[in-house]
Amino acid sequence: MPGDAAPAALVDMLQQYRGRARAVVRPGSTAEVAAVVRLLHRHRVPIVPQGGNTGLAGGATPDASGEAVVLSLARLDRIRAIDLDNDTLTLEAGVLLDAAREAAQREGRLFPLSLPSGGSCTVGGNLATNAGGTQVLRFGNTRALTLGIEVVTAEGEVWDGLRGLRKDNAGYDLRDLYIGSEGTLGIITAATLKLFPLPAVLQTAILRVRGIAGVIALLRRARQGFGASLTGFEIMSPTIWQLVATHAPEYRLPFPADEHDDVWHVLIETADEGREAEARDRLAEVIVAAVDDGLVDDAVVAESLAQRQAFWRIREHGLGEAQRRDGWNAKHDVSLPISRIPDFVAETGAALAAAFPGIRLFVHGHAGDGNLHVHVARPLGTGPEYWQTHETAVRALVQRAVAERGGSICAEHGVGQLKAGVLHEYKPALELALMRRIKAALDPHGLLNPGKVLAR
Amino acid sequence: MPGDAAPAALVDMLQQYRGRARAVVRPGSTAEVAAVVRLLHRHRVPIVPQGGNTGLAGGATPDASGEAVVLSLARLDRIRAIDLDNDTLTLEAGVLLDAAREAAQREGRLFPLSLPSGGSCTVGGNLATNAGGTQVLRFGNTRALTLGIEVVTAEGEVWDGLRGLRKDNAGYDLRDLYIGSEGTLGIITAATLKLFPLPAVLQTAILRVRGIAGVIALLRRARQGFGASLTGFEIMSPTIWQLVATHAPEYRLPFPADEHDDVWHVLIETADEGREAEARDRLAEVIVAAVDDGLVDDAVVAESLAQRQAFWRIREHGLGEAQRRDGWNAKHDVSLPISRIPDFVAETGAALAAAFPGIRLFVHGHAGDGNLHVHVARPLGTGPEYWQTHETAVRALVQRAVAERGGSICAEHGVGQLKAGVLHEYKPALELALMRRIKAALDPHGLLNPGKVLAR
Repeated sequence: MPGDAAPAALVDMLQQYRGRARAVVRPGSTAEVAAVVRLLHRHRVPIVPQGGNTGLAGGATPDASGEAVVLSLARLDRIRAIDLDNDTLTLEAGVLLDAAREAAQREGRLFPLSLPSGGSCTVGGNLATNAGGTQVLRFGNTRALTLGIEVVTAEGEVWDGLRGLRKDNAGYDLRDLYIGSEGTLGIITAATLKLFPLPAVLQTAILRVRGIAGVIALLRRARQGFGASLTGFEIMSPTIWQLVATHAPEYRLPFPADEHDDVWHVLIETADEGREAEARDRLAEVIVAAVDDGLVDDAVVAESLAQRQAFWRIREHGLGEAQRRDGWNAKHDVSLPISRIPDFVAETGAALAAAFPGIRLFVHGHAGDGNLHVHVARPLGTGPEYWQTHETAVRALVQRAVAERGGSICAEHGVGQLKAGVLHEYKPALELALMRRIKAALDPHGLLNPGKVLAR
Repeated sequence: MPGDAAPAALVDMLQQYRGRARAVVRPGSTAEVAAVVRLLHRHRVPIVPQGGNTGLAGGATPDASGEAVVLSLARLDRIRAIDLDNDTLTLEAGVLLDAAREAAQREGRLFPLSLPSGGSCTVGGNLATNAGGTQVLRFGNTRALTLGIEVVTAEGEVWDGLRGLRKDNAGYDLRDLYIGSEGTLGIITAATLKLFPLPAVLQTAILRVRGIAGVIALLRRARQGFGASLTGFEIMSPTIWQLVATHAPEYRLPFPADEHDDVWHVLIETADEGREAEARDRLAEVIVAAVDDGLVDDAVVAESLAQRQAFWRIREHGLGEAQRRDGWNAKHDVSLPISRIPDFVAETGAALAAAFPGIRLFVHGHAGDGNLHVHVARPLGTGPEYWQTHETAVRALVQRAVAERGGSICAEHGVGQLKAGVLHEYKPALELALMRRIKAALDPHGLLNPGKVLAR
């Protein structure tokens, strides 16, 4: 174990959680993972699996008891196979997401999962949390990109479920049960992932849209007009656009910012296999029709790769940078039926303003998936101590508003320890009871990542 | 209960299985399903859920003991909601598949699941078996089309998991565990399904392709050339094409048949949102390039809706009709890594010919999903008694060939009682043990569809 591995492994990336552990072990193969798990199982020692340690919900951080062993998958970093006729990539859990994307690209294929943390998160972590990202609209979450997995069970046995099959109804769907279970049911050590053709033509545009209802109306048209070619539909609220203009002007916005005018900005991306001219024409048609109907009042289409990357940098880095400079805010990663987004945004904004005068609401996210990142910042002029008084109430207001509309308080970031304690407020008791039965069936001694997903 | 419901409910569609039951109950609502299950649970009476009773693996037929009650979902036949902005359809398990498709179409939407039995199978049955069909290449199996489900548990409690969310990581994936479990873990009573835009332009063609290796090479080009627009890639072996020409000439084939020339026929379909001329051009480009490279020696593109339907009728009805007239054959629904299809077809054909002289192999299926229907017919000149001697050995040969190549012996038809007894030969013991733990956790008394999926 490198000398500095232990301290880094005991704190999460956002420094929200800090734990203790008996040891950090770094096995180098599935067999070694299994041997470690068998040993720890025999001695009833809890295990906290860890990938790139970039999670946002404390799912990979041990608790303060110091009883657990952190099991890092980082050294399982081999690409095992690429099958071009089957369009599959088989790799180990510790492979970095960007390395997986590059391995596919070298063979002329796309592995579509894309996250800002791609350079440091691992595919194993993506599988453990069923990560989402910016390409879900067309390609789905990590679960939808996975054909097979290899798992070390709670007892240290190895299940080889590394199948490269698109149809397999021979029994229960264990694969999808392990995916997204955050290491609480088993430890995913390898996976067989789906690859896709590299798109020939990418079109990227940023549109100014009147109001959140206009955003959803535009989404409907975009789905109709682009079909499966629509790969991105990212929205940014007037307030967050203004925040970038104020705090991160180096991300040069293609349109001026005015948080009072109720203009949302939408980043649309399409991916096509056809000719560039056709794709451009179709994008132009959809935009012109939306302008004619008063939904959109201006748009800019990226004219170069550099401009396309600049648009994405605003979305992937500019929003975050502006918020960091503004100070800590209360982040919510929620999903809603798309039809409920307009009233959720309007009514939650009004309720927050009424209950917490001066509070600021920043909204962005993957509207095409119904996934919003709802970030609440303290009033200007208040200090960090504002949150000591108000955080719990702010979170409860937002989460209740989501639940009332049939939404989820954990869209793509997982439950971890951040939300394990409140899940019972938003899920039917029966559903949690069923989950506990599954947990008891697959990890009878409760040794795998205790306290994550399901509260103790 | 109608007077004739009981007998029909006790035999499967293919008349392979015949059972007995204490009663056939036909509740009319989720609450009534739950009440029935609670009562039967209290008295420890086994339950066999049944939808349209069109399954091909005996999954909905009770055993011969007469101890079970058949629970028909047919009267739960309401469309509960359509949400156009969320692109979701919520309906009850007894709704016929074609009725679900029509409900979507009336609102200008596509529900893509498509099966020849659509007029009599229910969506509940599709969910129970994770049904596949002809649109999986683009849209996935039933599981991939489902956002939420409502389930009556083994104890008769109702889990309302009817969420219309595209991202939801709040806990374990119970949904996908129940889907495809063939009523052995719980009874699905309703679902929220994904809708898609109706495609503007459909293109359908039948191509003559040289050899099975040529078929897979063409598939690779089609994926690259059409991307997400490729919705169908159905293949038909020389032998089955010949069989249609001989036994079902009313399905007029666009090309003559010669089973000795190793020409496979491929039905390609693309669905686009763009202009018809563009879609035609792109289809022509892919075909011309494949002809130039010697993969394809002729092709015909449907010029009208009537011709398109005629092409699909060959695939969906002609193949089956020709086989019925030829006599019973041993059907295998298997999946393979796409890269292994050529050697599977060549070597299995040779091995069958060597072991069973004169035996005939008909292959068709959804090659884009790696899903083949491998049907083995007795030698010409032999009678039905041939199978009494040879069926077991023929099935073992085919299934072993699939397993050796990392394939599945249950691709899209489910396990039912047909394959429950052989699953242990083709799956790791650990995987079956994990499945049994799940079964025991969710149905501790083993009352839900006993003997299906997992052998007793």
